[in-house]
Amino acid sequence: VNQPEPRALLLTLEYDGSAYVGWQLQKNGLSVQAVLEEAAFQVCGARLRVRAASRTDSGVHARGQVALLPWRGRLGPAQALAALNARLPEDVCVRAAAWAEPGFQPRRRAQGKLYRYLIHNAQVRPVLERRMVWHLRHPLDIEGMNRAAEVLVGQHDFSAFRAANCPARSPIRRLDRLEAGRDGERVWIVALGPSFLKQMVRNLVGCLAEVGRGRLTPPEVAVILAGRARTRAPRTAPAQGLCLERVFFEPEAYRRALHAAY
Amino acid sequence: VNQPEPRALLLTLEYDGSAYVGWQLQKNGLSVQAVLEEAAFQVCGARLRVRAASRTDSGVHARGQVALLPWRGRLGPAQALAALNARLPEDVCVRAAAWAEPGFQPRRRAQGKLYRYLIHNAQVRPVLERRMVWHLRHPLDIEGMNRAAEVLVGQHDFSAFRAANCPARSPIRRLDRLEAGRDGERVWIVALGPSFLKQMVRNLVGCLAEVGRGRLTPPEVAVILAGRARTRAPRTAPAQGLCLERVFFEPEAYRRALHAAY
Repeated sequence: VNQPEPRALLLTLEYDGSAYVGWQLQKNGLSVQAVLEEAAFQVCGARLRVRAASRTDSGVHARGQVALLPWRGRLGPAQALAALNARLPEDVCVRAAAWAEPGFQPRRRAQGKLYRYLIHNAQVRPVLERRMVWHLRHPLDIEGMNRAAEVLVGQHDFSAFRAANCPARSPIRRLDRLEAGRDGERVWIVALGPSFLKQMVRNLVGCLAEVGRGRLTPPEVAVILAGRARTRAPRTAPAQGLCLERVFFEPEAYRRALHAAY
Repeated sequence: VNQPEPRALLLTLEYDGSAYVGWQLQKNGLSVQAVLEEAAFQVCGARLRVRAASRTDSGVHARGQVALLPWRGRLGPAQALAALNARLPEDVCVRAAAWAEPGFQPRRRAQGKLYRYLIHNAQVRPVLERRMVWHLRHPLDIEGMNRAAEVLVGQHDFSAFRAANCPARSPIRRLDRLEAGRDGERVWIVALGPSFLKQMVRNLVGCLAEVGRGRLTPPEVAVILAGRARTRAPRTAPAQGLCLERVFFEPEAYRRALHAAY
């Protein structure tokens, strides 16, 4: 019997999360995982289980999600990419595909992840970018936000910034970079770390936004962090402003991202 | 009788043209003008006729359309802006409002208009920016496009680049700037001129794209221009990539735009 060796494709994915319940399969709605597995089924006739480096929440976007897809049939990476993209809906696409090393596990092998959050900081609501930003009218104090970010960077118990239903065993995480900047009406926040708790980035952003509006000081952020209680921290920033920009597998690339401009 | 003097608001508008038949009122669908006039009616109870500086086509976006709205009632510009935005759909907003000088006519007083066209120049289709770009897979030669653009800049009979149903009396227009540039997978084209014929920018872009793909040379573009026949020019670029960025009323601001970076 000429059984092919089991192989898997490593896919880089871009998606507009607006219409999805998030990355992961859910009973209550359509997930990005479901549409990718359906496209894979249409291409190779097998029900394949995809695993991603990050379980993005409902409404969160990705420009550089990475997923492992066990692969059957004859198509190589380039042909598989074209065939999958022809079957995926317009709000999801495969940007790159390559053979994965045997036994590769995206979540375990990830050196880190880069998230970017966008705020439309202007009196008038956004129109052309409305699906990608959080609208905050009050002028944000970027310097203050960066002073508060310094308090949060490092290894901490991030219990104050995790969702109530976060499944992670440990609330300890290392946050290697958290930085805000302004480009006209647009305020961006980048978060870089080996891994994040559930809704951690959006909770950090919600907190920095309160500092930016002058309703919270950096020392108060230190108290919230030390308090380790989600209920004392500011509200979660909405999902639509968040985008998983990149997953790093090479330590060198991750180290460069610590100092890159965004 | 205490009749207020007739006054008008000068509005700067942003809109996502995806869902509209264009700026102007049409019998076959919803126009941006119609939703703006409806919002004005809801705010001040009068049926008011809006006039814009540019009649953008179906599917074309704007970040800086300018429109004149005769105004009734007591609200000043800032209150009118807030009241209109509260009633406009999420894909249209008023970015700025000010009293217009008496007798101001947006189309006549415009010194010039700046349009920007975006091309997603990559093998894989766009996702997050899909409503704002034209997807072209073949790598575009920006240098060649700019050599062809030089042929088109200046005062010419642009009959080869006007829509068959263009209502303008004269096909003569002055094109002050036409320039292409690349930012990674994104190719942009800016067009600046006092006024444009119907679909002129999209026809210029369609032509430059053919040059970028190596299917047309700059001398051939000169022949097409001189031929003055739309039927011999390349196809029209799709509407979704086009955005009316700004309308200039001050000669100084217009002159600066001739050399500004985009």
